[in-house]
Amino acid sequence: MLNITNPSEARKIIRSGKYDLQTAGIAGKYVQGNVCILPSTYALDFASFCQKNPKPCPLIGFGSKGDPFLKDLGDIDIRTDVPRYRVWNKGSIVDEPKDILKYWNDDLVVFILGCSMSFELPLIEAGIEMQHIKNNTTVPMYKTNVDCIPAGQFSGKLVVSMRPLSVENTIKAIQISSRFPAVHGAPVHFGDPAQIGIKDIMKPEYGDPPKQIKNSDVPVFWACGVTPQSVVEKCKPDFCITHKPGCMLITDKLNSELAAIN
Amino acid sequence: MLNITNPSEARKIIRSGKYDLQTAGIAGKYVQGNVCILPSTYALDFASFCQKNPKPCPLIGFGSKGDPFLKDLGDIDIRTDVPRYRVWNKGSIVDEPKDILKYWNDDLVVFILGCSMSFELPLIEAGIEMQHIKNNTTVPMYKTNVDCIPAGQFSGKLVVSMRPLSVENTIKAIQISSRFPAVHGAPVHFGDPAQIGIKDIMKPEYGDPPKQIKNSDVPVFWACGVTPQSVVEKCKPDFCITHKPGCMLITDKLNSELAAIN
Repeated sequence: MLNITNPSEARKIIRSGKYDLQTAGIAGKYVQGNVCILPSTYALDFASFCQKNPKPCPLIGFGSKGDPFLKDLGDIDIRTDVPRYRVWNKGSIVDEPKDILKYWNDDLVVFILGCSMSFELPLIEAGIEMQHIKNNTTVPMYKTNVDCIPAGQFSGKLVVSMRPLSVENTIKAIQISSRFPAVHGAPVHFGDPAQIGIKDIMKPEYGDPPKQIKNSDVPVFWACGVTPQSVVEKCKPDFCITHKPGCMLITDKLNSELAAIN
Repeated sequence: MLNITNPSEARKIIRSGKYDLQTAGIAGKYVQGNVCILPSTYALDFASFCQKNPKPCPLIGFGSKGDPFLKDLGDIDIRTDVPRYRVWNKGSIVDEPKDILKYWNDDLVVFILGCSMSFELPLIEAGIEMQHIKNNTTVPMYKTNVDCIPAGQFSGKLVVSMRPLSVENTIKAIQISSRFPAVHGAPVHFGDPAQIGIKDIMKPEYGDPPKQIKNSDVPVFWACGVTPQSVVEKCKPDFCITHKPGCMLITDKLNSELAAIN
């Protein structure tokens, strides 16, 4: 992991191509974002999909057509400032590059969605250990059987991230994350994974498997910003660029700015 | 005022054309929405404007192109279910009809923005009197000198609504409205109106003048969903339809569903 607290410095290193791994814990006080870039013909429906599904898809950035810069989130060039991208053609991944300079064009619209990392710091500050951060792995993420609300051509299943917590910490984590509706808010489920269609908790669809889930631990599930990737797989837009799960955009916005109640 | 608690019944009466006045207090437990309808060519920039300015423009509904129905907000036909509309041509009001059947076309996109009425009920339930509801008038609304964050062709000044409150109730109202970020959230200002560019507190640009502001009262200002109307006046899109300020869309969504922390 990059041991850097300044978001702009972290982006400089990422921009240079020297770091292409997961970003959990880097510049931890600052908002990290999930990335979804679509041709303009898909953009209005995708914006509507995000509005209808604010728990998995909380919009924190919205570029103008053809504009790779996101001034309101910092000195950001979306073509170079994410450690790893995924390039999708009709729902299939065709490349995982370190920049998207050769894929960029004037018709693309950038969407940035809030990410659970923004509530992890307040959880850690409240004394709640995050297993995946301790182990320097990517949080485990699962496809559920829960339908998102469709919008135009976009529909699909909710993706969730999971953190194993004690009962006491589950209660605290529900309280704390509720204050952050712009970054997934309160959990969507805890306990039995089967109730939301997860077959094997040790085999996540995205990220790394959990190291262990103790008997006294509760698996706690939050809506996840990787949901659009499952939607893209299903709805197969002609073209799309996302981040690689775990490799997020680091912004200049403080997590604390996103708290509904400070 | 219509003394009706059921939102669907209220809409039926409005749909029939029998009620065309302000909606404050009608079906008070349910979310009311500001309306902005634009041709699709403007829709993506407007969605981006809302994302960048969530305090005045919290998106609670987002129609598909050409679709006048808003299923996720209830059995709603946007062409008939608002008491009074405003039809705009290049930034000027050209009609204030009771329905927009003759103006509707397959290229229009409907946006519904949250409205302060959703936090007024919890304020009233906490024992805070709303002067304008007591007097059966529309809340006073003012154009400020505060710039919204521009998006594409949309830019303009923030519009605010004002409620005079005691100091004690101001504190309570800040606490309570903070729980409702989807309907403007905490106030943006209190006290001296001149600090946000309001010249005469007794002469609001929209709604009715306040009856009185006692010396012991604090004028408390919230971001207002009429902001898009001031933006439309300034940016002059070829065509636009809004509600008439105060005459809102009544939805089937409970205000309590919009609380960030229940």
